[in-house]
Amino acid sequence: MPILDLVRDLFPMPRSITGAGLRRTLERIRRDIPLEIREVPSGTRVLDWEIPREWNIREGLIETLDGRTIVDFSASSLHVMSYSSPIDRIVSREELAAHVHTLPEQPDLIPYRKSYFGNDWAFCLPHTTWLAMHDEAYRVKIDSDFSLGALSYGELLIPGTESKEFVFSTHCCHPSLANDNLSGIAVATALAHTLLSRRSRLSYRFLFIPATFGSLAWLAQNESVLPKVQHGLVLSCVGDPGHFHYKRSRRGAASIDRAVARVLAERSGPFTILPFRPDGCDERQYCSPAYNLPFGCFMRSPNGTFSEYHTSADNLDFIQADALEESLATILDVVNLLEADVTYVRRDGRGEPHLGRHGLYRALTGQEGAGDTMQLAVQWVLNLADGHHTLLDMVEYSGLPYRQLMAAAKAAREVGLITVTD
Amino acid sequence: MPILDLVRDLFPMPRSITGAGLRRTLERIRRDIPLEIREVPSGTRVLDWEIPREWNIREGLIETLDGRTIVDFSASSLHVMSYSSPIDRIVSREELAAHVHTLPEQPDLIPYRKSYFGNDWAFCLPHTTWLAMHDEAYRVKIDSDFSLGALSYGELLIPGTESKEFVFSTHCCHPSLANDNLSGIAVATALAHTLLSRRSRLSYRFLFIPATFGSLAWLAQNESVLPKVQHGLVLSCVGDPGHFHYKRSRRGAASIDRAVARVLAERSGPFTILPFRPDGCDERQYCSPAYNLPFGCFMRSPNGTFSEYHTSADNLDFIQADALEESLATILDVVNLLEADVTYVRRDGRGEPHLGRHGLYRALTGQEGAGDTMQLAVQWVLNLADGHHTLLDMVEYSGLPYRQLMAAAKAAREVGLITVTD
Amino acid sequence: MPILDLVRDLFPMPRSITGAGLRRTLERIRRDIPLEIREVPSGTRVLDWEIPREWNIREGLIETLDGRTIVDFSASSLHVMSYSSPIDRIVSREELAAHVHTLPEQPDLIPYRKSYFGNDWAFCLPHTTWLAMHDEAYRVKIDSDFSLGALSYGELLIPGTESKEFVFSTHCCHPSLANDNLSGIAVATALAHTLLSRRSRLSYRFLFIPATFGSLAWLAQNESVLPKVQHGLVLSCVGDPGHFHYKRSRRGAASIDRAVARVLAERSGPFTILPFRPDGCDERQYCSPAYNLPFGCFMRSPNGTFSEYHTSADNLDFIQADALEESLATILDVVNLLEADVTYVRRDGRGEPHLGRHGLYRALTGQEGAGDTMQLAVQWVLNLADGHHTLLDMVEYSGLPYRQLMAAAKAAREVGLITVTD
Repeated sequence: MPILDLVRDLFPMPRSITGAGLRRTLERIRRDIPLEIREVPSGTRVLDWEIPREWNIREGLIETLDGRTIVDFSASSLHVMSYSSPIDRIVSREELAAHVHTLPEQPDLIPYRKSYFGNDWAFCLPHTTWLAMHDEAYRVKIDSDFSLGALSYGELLIPGTESKEFVFSTHCCHPSLANDNLSGIAVATALAHTLLSRRSRLSYRFLFIPATFGSLAWLAQNESVLPKVQHGLVLSCVGDPGHFHYKRSRRGAASIDRAVARVLAERSGPFTILPFRPDGCDERQYCSPAYNLPFGCFMRSPNGTFSEYHTSADNLDFIQADALEESLATILDVVNLLEADVTYVRRDGRGEPHLGRHGLYRALTGQEGAGDTMQLAVQWVLNLADGHHTLLDMVEYSGLPYRQLMAAAKAAREVGLITVTD
Repeated sequence: MPILDLVRDLFPMPRSITGAGLRRTLERIRRDIPLEIREVPSGTRVLDWEIPREWNIREGLIETLDGRTIVDFSASSLHVMSYSSPIDRIVSREELAAHVHTLPEQPDLIPYRKSYFGNDWAFCLPHTTWLAMHDEAYRVKIDSDFSLGALSYGELLIPGTESKEFVFSTHCCHPSLANDNLSGIAVATALAHTLLSRRSRLSYRFLFIPATFGSLAWLAQNESVLPKVQHGLVLSCVGDPGHFHYKRSRRGAASIDRAVARVLAERSGPFTILPFRPDGCDERQYCSPAYNLPFGCFMRSPNGTFSEYHTSADNLDFIQADALEESLATILDVVNLLEADVTYVRRDGRGEPHLGRHGLYRALTGQEGAGDTMQLAVQWVLNLADGHHTLLDMVEYSGLPYRQLMAAAKAAREVGLITVTD
Repeated sequence: MPILDLVRDLFPMPRSITGAGLRRTLERIRRDIPLEIREVPSGTRVLDWEIPREWNIREGLIETLDGRTIVDFSASSLHVMSYSSPIDRIVSREELAAHVHTLPEQPDLIPYRKSYFGNDWAFCLPHTTWLAMHDEAYRVKIDSDFSLGALSYGELLIPGTESKEFVFSTHCCHPSLANDNLSGIAVATALAHTLLSRRSRLSYRFLFIPATFGSLAWLAQNESVLPKVQHGLVLSCVGDPGHFHYKRSRRGAASIDRAVARVLAERSGPFTILPFRPDGCDERQYCSPAYNLPFGCFMRSPNGTFSEYHTSADNLDFIQADALEESLATILDVVNLLEADVTYVRRDGRGEPHLGRHGLYRALTGQEGAGDTMQLAVQWVLNLADGHHTLLDMVEYSGLPYRQLMAAAKAAREVGLITVTD
């Protein structure tokens, strides 16, 4: 199941933080993984916020008075500002100018705009289009409505042998923008698909949510779940050709921060670790002071740093299948490392075990020296297995590749030299 | 009230660690601020020390036997070593040589010398003067006396809304030396004058003290005050044209250390942060092991690092009005930052507040991106207000200008999103 | 008593982890220092290991069928692999090839090989010798035997005024190899000789042990001693011309780690501090997780990093008297520093003491400034003597030479300004 298939199917749907386009998006994801779709009614108080009325739109047009269509929402869901109020009348060019968003420095692109709290309407169009509009008046029509509906989001819990959770969160409220964030949706879906076919230690929770409102709603309604959350990742913009960026959690040195940093460091190629900041994606909510959950944000090019960001150029040509696959593989490496990140203790920690007797060493040693680093990895595991070091601690202390220490710990555990402790 | 006025008035007074010149100095300061002048009687035991007898001097002369005056204390209070015993007789040039201090490498300057514990007399004169003295004998006269008097110092407490204190200490025992330390006296006086006209959170205490003896006496007699001391600064040599130097407290990372470092870093121009050392000015006493108070030392050019130090070249031409004013302004910045350095906590720390509803955000957001850093400062304050971070913590964690975080905290507090905790 | 004398006497003895050569080695050391020789019977279980049967060898020969001797153990104890089983028969060249160790890249050298757990025999010879052996068959004879004997090791405890121990451990199981580790044996013996003639605060324990088995046996049988161990050093390869290397203990910042680092930093010349790793010498056992003793490893060139390592080139020409003497002197510096590394406290820590009154200062001070660093060292000691800082803390905090701080602490203690606390 190529990751791009899902992106292509979702691209045209007119998403916003509520409404039919969002529901269709969640339903399409549910064809790949057994998502539960939740609805939070309009008007529900979630913390300091209130779930807005549901917004639906059927049509959005600017026409000349002689009936020529200049801008049409059906051509791009970016053409109408999200949460625009309905309108259907002739307006002067001057009045229209106050309701038009363009990008003068990227004149051929349509910008993406939203305004959830105003009572406004607006069109987004290429600056070149706007420059060519010289009539005194135009007919504008937005067939939208606000209703007491609901905010929808998708949730999937894959139970592991432990109730400790690793949560993946990805926003699904943006209209026809591919990297931001159909890429995150598609990689999360593929990851869930992979984990559904495995037996895991950790439980995995996937959240497909409208930005801000979705994470706030989930947090407010799941406070009893939060103590189980051991690791969290927000996935955003993971399909572009840029190199990996990881933004640390507010805690700064949580296991998720250390695991991602290690996996990226052991891959070839550049990457950037960013400090925590209180802006960005939904980590803003997960890392708010009273929750302070260990959520980092995994990205290729960060929001706002690429010229296609929040424009019609963030389309199916911008993202790459290779980039999506590499994002998935890298996150799976993080999953595998954190699956192994338990605390080990020697059954008897006095002295070195006689490795040969346990099948972990050669009987003959001599000038050939210290052995390869796999042998050293075994020694590190046996030395640090004191009930105070997790596998990540061992990786960082020893400086050896994490895969070697994972293999060494597995071997030492199989012959009974070490056990897992809490 | 120009800061230099006080320096000019004080310059000619013949100060030492006790005596009339010191009292006149304190009385002159009292014309600007309501100083209380304290007297510690000679012979009083203060910790490991004893308050010395009071020393007063009326005249100091070297004359040729035919009555020509070569050195005259009335021309410079540096000419007689502080605490010289009286003498009035004819001495051979050879005997005189053992009682003369000069600076062969700075032959035109008079050195500054003191000897509180000997029973000695000496003159300080330019090396050129000494080289021109070829007579076989001279008449020397020092009209000084030692008496059971007192050591005087000045103290001013400006109460704030909290009893926590910020203490400023400056030595006032040196004779006609401008930078060391009339500069410190004058800046401290101007600072006190400013704080007297404000309402402050912290209480401010100013100590104008003879070096070593004064701080020891104050410490020994005020041990019940010490638990209230939150911050302390010794002011020394703050009038020369050199750049700022700050010597850290013994604690090394006290709030005063962090605040001064931050204020200096955000000013333009060079500055130097020095580690704590157990020599220097009165921080030696404040930072002695059993007290270990958070006192740093704020300077322009440190003691002993400029060629004018402890010579007659440290005069009214050496110090600059601009330098004094800049020192005052910088210390006021430190005061302002520490006034705001309280611990904040969100009323409800779950999720981000809806900034627009509280008047702290725009309703419309989009591609224009993350906003200016003032908006980010608001987000930092709201994110770190968890009851564990002070304003200084927020400044250091975020890396944003402290004034922005002060403004953001003020705004967030005014709308009731955060409160101050202990 | 030149250190080299002991090395020369020990060089020819055919050592292994058990047997007559090892006992003769310990007996020779006992001529210099009053070593106790302990025996651990074959078959004794020590932790995860078992003391092997004792191995003794009288003869090892490869001869041509016409009686010409090609390889003779009596010429070098390296010629027979340690723990070779006995053999006395004619073998084909092809069969012999599987029992021959050579170093093709160092064709003139004999390698050192051991195999404690196999049931094998082998000869070690120069590759050139092997290349010249073209006969179809050879007579091979190893006159060795395995018996229920014992593993021998030497131990010496030199009591100090405190029961806290500084343990030196050095392996003594290698055959005719000079740097590895007759150098360690000889330096440890000379060090013990020096300490026997002194009165010390710490108690010193010396262990001359067969590698791995010896340290495991000592640890297993002395668990009640371990809480007294404050510092430990493994001495290995301390006679070659390379610069000093120190491998940190597993704790990483134990007093021994800090003291050695400081002593090396204050000597002239290069040195290298290595992080802990779980391979190496007997620190593997001392630093195993359940013991975690503060043992570092003191070396010149580390095991395996020099081309002579575990070959016949590690002979009496390779090591140098100067290098051995410098190793001894450096370790004595470490001993002296740790002897002084106690926690000091001022009798009265309020303010500075009046140094002149205690004979620790000049009465006259002035422009000549801060004094030399010896005076500053006194101030540092008096400032940091708060019951929380040891001498090493003072050295690291002040950055002054440790000898100055040792002298300052001694002087301050003699005049009663500071005392030692626990």
